[in-house]
Amino acid sequence: MNLRESALEIFHAALNAADPRTAIHRVVQRDGDRLRVREYEYDLAQIGRVFVIGFGKAGAAMAQATEEILGDRIARGLVIVKYGHVAPLNKIQLHQAGHPLLDENSLSGTRQILEILDDANENDLVICLISGGGSALLELPVDAPVGVSLDDFRATTDALLRAGATINELNTVRKHLSQVKGGQLARRAHGAQIISLILSDVIGSPLDMIASGPTAPDPTTFGDAQNILERRGVQTQFPASVIHHIERGVQGDVADTPDERNHIFERVQNVIIADNAIACNAAVQHAKSLGFNTLLLSTYLQGEAKEVAKVFAAIAREIVQSNQPMAHPACIIAGGETTVTVRGKGIGGRNQELALAAAIEIDGMAASRVVVLSGGTDGTDGPNDAAGAIADERTIFRATMHGKDARAFLANNDSYNFFKPLNDLIITGPTNTNVNDVILVIVG
Amino acid sequence: MNLRESALEIFHAALNAADPRTAIHRVVQRDGDRLRVREYEYDLAQIGRVFVIGFGKAGAAMAQATEEILGDRIARGLVIVKYGHVAPLNKIQLHQAGHPLLDENSLSGTRQILEILDDANENDLVICLISGGGSALLELPVDAPVGVSLDDFRATTDALLRAGATINELNTVRKHLSQVKGGQLARRAHGAQIISLILSDVIGSPLDMIASGPTAPDPTTFGDAQNILERRGVQTQFPASVIHHIERGVQGDVADTPDERNHIFERVQNVIIADNAIACNAAVQHAKSLGFNTLLLSTYLQGEAKEVAKVFAAIAREIVQSNQPMAHPACIIAGGETTVTVRGKGIGGRNQELALAAAIEIDGMAASRVVVLSGGTDGTDGPNDAAGAIADERTIFRATMHGKDARAFLANNDSYNFFKPLNDLIITGPTNTNVNDVILVIVG
Repeated sequence: MNLRESALEIFHAALNAADPRTAIHRVVQRDGDRLRVREYEYDLAQIGRVFVIGFGKAGAAMAQATEEILGDRIARGLVIVKYGHVAPLNKIQLHQAGHPLLDENSLSGTRQILEILDDANENDLVICLISGGGSALLELPVDAPVGVSLDDFRATTDALLRAGATINELNTVRKHLSQVKGGQLARRAHGAQIISLILSDVIGSPLDMIASGPTAPDPTTFGDAQNILERRGVQTQFPASVIHHIERGVQGDVADTPDERNHIFERVQNVIIADNAIACNAAVQHAKSLGFNTLLLSTYLQGEAKEVAKVFAAIAREIVQSNQPMAHPACIIAGGETTVTVRGKGIGGRNQELALAAAIEIDGMAASRVVVLSGGTDGTDGPNDAAGAIADERTIFRATMHGKDARAFLANNDSYNFFKPLNDLIITGPTNTNVNDVILVIVG
Repeated sequence: MNLRESALEIFHAALNAADPRTAIHRVVQRDGDRLRVREYEYDLAQIGRVFVIGFGKAGAAMAQATEEILGDRIARGLVIVKYGHVAPLNKIQLHQAGHPLLDENSLSGTRQILEILDDANENDLVICLISGGGSALLELPVDAPVGVSLDDFRATTDALLRAGATINELNTVRKHLSQVKGGQLARRAHGAQIISLILSDVIGSPLDMIASGPTAPDPTTFGDAQNILERRGVQTQFPASVIHHIERGVQGDVADTPDERNHIFERVQNVIIADNAIACNAAVQHAKSLGFNTLLLSTYLQGEAKEVAKVFAAIAREIVQSNQPMAHPACIIAGGETTVTVRGKGIGGRNQELALAAAIEIDGMAASRVVVLSGGTDGTDGPNDAAGAIADERTIFRATMHGKDARAFLANNDSYNFFKPLNDLIITGPTNTNVNDVILVIVG
């Protein structure tokens, strides 16, 4: 097998580890009445009813796997998915709603989930299927006595975004306008045992951030939310209902989101079934099985794609020259999400741009073969049909034969049209998952 | 010892390994008539006279070390240094000349070096001391029958730079207008044994690139030089003497620069006494001695400083979270040269900017202490008195206490004024060496 085939195989090992169905079957095992979820064990004979709730883009596939394991025991289930993200199911109902912008169907789906929870008691088990996109798909703003309408909710988000709020600030405020975010969903289950199976699209998988942490302890408070409104200096732009609700919360008239000391979390297991780290570690294992020395560099990768590419090329060059940081044949694995500052008018994505910049840096690197692959685990990389691209030390030479000037394509952010005629795009189609990007650097 | 002290000590271990005198004493050992230069051994009893020649900014310190070892045997010596870069010597004469722009004193010094070589024969030993800046300090354009004047030489350089020529292209042309570059100095020694002791300021230490490789085989030809003139489309701007000389070379009327097949190199040892890799490996050894797990990431580092910082921070975060790529206490060492795209009006340098960007990324990183140090081995980092800076996970907090907004300082490229009141600048003064930059990432 050549190095490019190895790289593609290792990337697909990462994709497979992040597949929602594979991930649930890896983490959740059942033997009769014995249910194991990683280190936790449950006796289904001691459990009343099993409910399934969920929200997120991977919801349909996660629901399928859950039915495969627990279909005979599921009393009722509803999973909110993005429009069109459906799959055939027997027990669990799919409810389609808006993403990335929430809509009335998000609210009605959330109400139905709360109805299911209202039916639960402490003898029951609630399986909660959480994946990326859940923040928009699951939402119900606080209601009486100070109702925050969907319009008020959206206006608040817009004002904060205009004022330059970070995603953390935005989520802190929204958790305190929600009935379900920031651990509050867990509070609605009447003491039922909750197992949240979480497919994380957030770097580092902080439980309180993925889908705004509906079943996770929330470290933020009404006071934090009020500070953010003040700091961003946009209170006058907020609907009166929002100001009033947060003030009531600060004064203690409304219960705050539950934090880690709250006893409800004794009945909740939040389990990350797949994330970038799990995908990258699967890549490490597969690379080892192919005979490569491996190095997991980071699963927190960020930065401008074409500059990050230079660092990877520098590491490849060191391996070629001195067998450091490790001897070749070597495979370096990294995960995360880079960014592209768009200055040109071309077609591409951060993964293809990283591969293009890397191609320039490793051009003609002597003595060893070098391959750089960068791909999005959701199968997309910008507005085109590629998930990423693959480059090696002869890519620039081959491009020159096609009359293509790599630097000009990079300057125009046109990585897609650079790689397409070289057949070096990675096309996977939709993968039904998203655990960010995986980058491989291989030195043969 | 705390982590910041460890980082500074490790950086100084790298500086020490790159010190010209230390480096020469490490590589050159003498015991009576027995002279060892790394793996080569010479019997001084069998050698006629010892001549010392040299050129480069570290010339004075290199000459001192050479006198300390071989003072009793030196028949004659001359080293060309930058104006003011002098030191007391007994046997070897220092000749001051222009840098970075060569001047008439560069030419007169080079003529004196050629006179010394004219005096040498195959029984003699020539020690050649080469360091950064040697390209400007050693130069003598070709003379009759087609003389290229200093003005013609400079006009050629200017025209190529205006046309966007790379440093490699520039050097290829200049080697073919020179009497001494591209291995030609070695050809002038009448068969004497030559030991070139080289302190490299070029990433990767390619022998033909450091000071334009006066004693190294040259892979480029008159044909290459002519292609570059044509490709850059600026022949009309070149002096007639230059065009004519290169044409004569292509036609074989002038001997080309000697390549690796040339027998003269059987009598030449080119020895890198210090470079970025040697400095970084010394840092690795010192970090190990302090109890750190170490990883030499690359000595070919490049890219925009603030983006490279993000990659280092991502690696630090992975170590904190998963003990990968290695367990803490961990020290990652990297070398090379980053760049800064200046958009602001502040004071700083690439090392200080990298440290500032890293400070933002590692701000408040929990569970472990994290330190990032970036420093120039020449003791300078832009137009200020710092060599670099040091940051840790509390730097941003401390800066806030000083009323400083790190992101604003970074946007204004004002890293010097960010770090100065925090006492986090690294001030070494001139180090008399230059082996590019060293970057350390420590996780305690």
